[in-house]
Amino acid sequence: MEAKVKTLDIRAGKPVVILNNREAIERSIFLGDRICIKHEDTEVMAIVDTSNEVPEGHIVLFDETNEELGAEEGKTVIVNSIPKPDSIDYIKKKVEGKDLSYDETHEIVKDAVDFRLTDSELMAYTVAIDMSDFSLDEARDLTKAMVDTGEEIDIKNALDKHCIGGVPGNRTTPIIVSIIAAAGYKIPKTSSRAITSPAGTADTMEVITDVEHSLKEIEDIVDKTNGCFSWGGALNLAPADDEFIRVRDSLNLDPLEQLLSSVLAKKKAVGAETVLIDIPMGDGSKIKNSKEASKLSEYFEKLGSELGMDVFTLVSDGSNPIGNGIGPALEARDVLKILKSGGKEGPKDLTEKSIKMADLLLEEVGSDKSAERILTSGKAYNKFKDIVEAQGGGVMDPDEVELAENHQIVRSQKRGRVKDLDNKIVSKITKATGCSKDKKSGLYLHKKKDDPVEKGEKIMTVYSESPDKLKKALEIAEENKVFTFKSLLSE
Amino acid sequence: MEAKVKTLDIRAGKPVVILNNREAIERSIFLGDRICIKHEDTEVMAIVDTSNEVPEGHIVLFDETNEELGAEEGKTVIVNSIPKPDSIDYIKKKVEGKDLSYDETHEIVKDAVDFRLTDSELMAYTVAIDMSDFSLDEARDLTKAMVDTGEEIDIKNALDKHCIGGVPGNRTTPIIVSIIAAAGYKIPKTSSRAITSPAGTADTMEVITDVEHSLKEIEDIVDKTNGCFSWGGALNLAPADDEFIRVRDSLNLDPLEQLLSSVLAKKKAVGAETVLIDIPMGDGSKIKNSKEASKLSEYFEKLGSELGMDVFTLVSDGSNPIGNGIGPALEARDVLKILKSGGKEGPKDLTEKSIKMADLLLEEVGSDKSAERILTSGKAYNKFKDIVEAQGGGVMDPDEVELAENHQIVRSQKRGRVKDLDNKIVSKITKATGCSKDKKSGLYLHKKKDDPVEKGEKIMTVYSESPDKLKKALEIAEENKVFTFKSLLSE
Repeated sequence: MEAKVKTLDIRAGKPVVILNNREAIERSIFLGDRICIKHEDTEVMAIVDTSNEVPEGHIVLFDETNEELGAEEGKTVIVNSIPKPDSIDYIKKKVEGKDLSYDETHEIVKDAVDFRLTDSELMAYTVAIDMSDFSLDEARDLTKAMVDTGEEIDIKNALDKHCIGGVPGNRTTPIIVSIIAAAGYKIPKTSSRAITSPAGTADTMEVITDVEHSLKEIEDIVDKTNGCFSWGGALNLAPADDEFIRVRDSLNLDPLEQLLSSVLAKKKAVGAETVLIDIPMGDGSKIKNSKEASKLSEYFEKLGSELGMDVFTLVSDGSNPIGNGIGPALEARDVLKILKSGGKEGPKDLTEKSIKMADLLLEEVGSDKSAERILTSGKAYNKFKDIVEAQGGGVMDPDEVELAENHQIVRSQKRGRVKDLDNKIVSKITKATGCSKDKKSGLYLHKKKDDPVEKGEKIMTVYSESPDKLKKALEIAEENKVFTFKSLLSE
Repeated sequence: MEAKVKTLDIRAGKPVVILNNREAIERSIFLGDRICIKHEDTEVMAIVDTSNEVPEGHIVLFDETNEELGAEEGKTVIVNSIPKPDSIDYIKKKVEGKDLSYDETHEIVKDAVDFRLTDSELMAYTVAIDMSDFSLDEARDLTKAMVDTGEEIDIKNALDKHCIGGVPGNRTTPIIVSIIAAAGYKIPKTSSRAITSPAGTADTMEVITDVEHSLKEIEDIVDKTNGCFSWGGALNLAPADDEFIRVRDSLNLDPLEQLLSSVLAKKKAVGAETVLIDIPMGDGSKIKNSKEASKLSEYFEKLGSELGMDVFTLVSDGSNPIGNGIGPALEARDVLKILKSGGKEGPKDLTEKSIKMADLLLEEVGSDKSAERILTSGKAYNKFKDIVEAQGGGVMDPDEVELAENHQIVRSQKRGRVKDLDNKIVSKITKATGCSKDKKSGLYLHKKKDDPVEKGEKIMTVYSESPDKLKKALEIAEENKVFTFKSLLSE
């Protein structure tokens, strides 16, 4: 059927249209059905609302629908009902505990991307994977299908790294990328923004330079400099993954197999062939013991190999924050300090971990270069500057990074040696300051594990752009123990 | 926050509101969130859309929202964000394969009814039940929680019957209810309309009389006559069940445990204490063999007992349609013929099955009355008339039931004896005539299993209110075999 477009400035979080009630029923289109709207060469699937006030022969487009369709008010579009997709049968098959073929998995993933499946159908699939014996073959198929239904960066033989998260700070990426790119290897790094953590690499790098690029721009930047620091969120890399994550997040589901597919699909889509996965382990991180860590390592390596990638892992100490600054601006300062000083200034733990990971990557591709020498020689900092220049320039000096004006120093009430910091409390305080939205807010840790502390000495500084949030963050700091101490006497 | 109501004549299939975009963000209310709107003593949960064109301090209510809230344009309502419900954690627990307590299950079911859970969260729960070892205790808890979160009919010691479906025709309910009520037992029967089958009992009875009653009206009708024929759909009996069914239907999921909870929750809510479950078995029905039938019987009986009900089963022949008419009006004719003639006219198989089931119920409650005698004596017909009168009167004579004018007789192309009829093809043809929406349409079977047929003799008549649909139905009849014959020579 043909219909004349009216637009309505309403956002519903997904494509919605309104049809005349009587007309819809006549065409056996029901409330909540999905239909296909075609305008010139663009087709969009949308959910049907109905109304008596929409004139017959018209269709009302909500914002999200028209953002994709791009049809002006008064234009004529073609409206078609769509048959129930076959992928629903495949989801049902998975719920029944059966294995799916590649074609069946691909169909589900493609329909997820094309908005032919509802959130609850995607949820059924995700729960079914979680609760069934999801084989390695199926995980490979799912990952491939996610890559195949999106765009890919045309770079060959790239290196990449990924951290499964859970550790505050731990901003190794900018340092590793600078070293690897300086060593002559391509590392087209895309990173996420924080969702539940105080900061993502994209949030931190955005304090320094622009991180929103098109795929073409990324290719150009990497072509020029070997590396990039880009936000992966708006790129069309393995876009099905974003749909699955959205659905899973509502239930806080984080099934292992889907987590891994998700990570490796994004890596595969940027052309990565050698990938180092950082698996922080210990109290307060995602992985509690070496059994879990081994299982995850093994699975990552196997799945990588099924996908034709060399994926290897580093099980690192995840029991304490890495670096001193937590929050985008404070982390950016740490990173700039380390790079600019060639590793002589800035947090030691972050420096050492970054060097170690860069060395592992270099070794893995058969290079005889030393990550430490690339850092200390200033080559890493120069490369960092090149990349930031290629991204349109930005802040190159740690002191130029602005912090929130409201801040308060917290001092130790006892003398002793730091036994441990609590990752979860550190994250909680940092989020309370307004991170990751307020980039200048955050938490600076003056003391770290094993440092001796005098009574009255600074242990933390809390920064926030809002005095209310600063107060709230300090309350959390007071009610919970960030630091535990051991007596110096016992030494 | 307070907000002034604007109304918008849009139906979305669920409660939706629109808030001003800037104002929503300021209050940390995001697109797709659920909020609570309060007007006088009524609270409604709704999904948030946003718009720049809604003035600050206003809220736009879609149709479904205001149907529940009943706030006029310009009235002031209270808008509150709602915290993530605890039931989400319990759903996650179920996905992790753990057992839930009664309180946890109750919380999920209550939040489903109150619209605090999204469809995809309900789907996760339903898939998790399907894929986990769902214990009898949990099935009992789920059933109880569904009853407890709805209304109940205040009738004691009631009898009831239920068929798990799958057999065309098979309209035993009006006959059984008339016999049981005539025998002096209460049987407050609520039935469904057809969703995927050619007719439900409510569709058939609606040809004869009004079936839409309130709970109070049902109590009055049963008080007067011992029985009723009511549509259960709009009553608030175990309303969570309707939510679960809606979610499951999108994937055609029909997990055993949920099917049983669903059936028994509705029975429990009408006060039934003795319930006969008809389990048709055989090719073309839902249950294929006696192993499946036994499993289902056992489960029904156990779950019934956990709920303090006497639930027992009849495994019946489900391989062929029961009765001659298929479709609301044709089935109503069969039922009226049997009742009016006291079993002397009308389809034999339907008469015999109805008597058998009524006898089983009478025996179970310790009655020495004979269902056959109640039918042949005319007592059942008189009781049927009483009930129909109490429901506002209706058609009492089979010949008064109108059939569609367009019809075509199908004759046999061979001589033989009917070996079998195909349930699925019978349903398919009947649905193609326009059933259950077009009540006068349908299929009349002149011959049944084991009947001898001469070449050229009538085997079916197809009725449809639409000539196009009649043509389509006849095409299906031509392309598929409704009847299979065996040679008379071999006898």
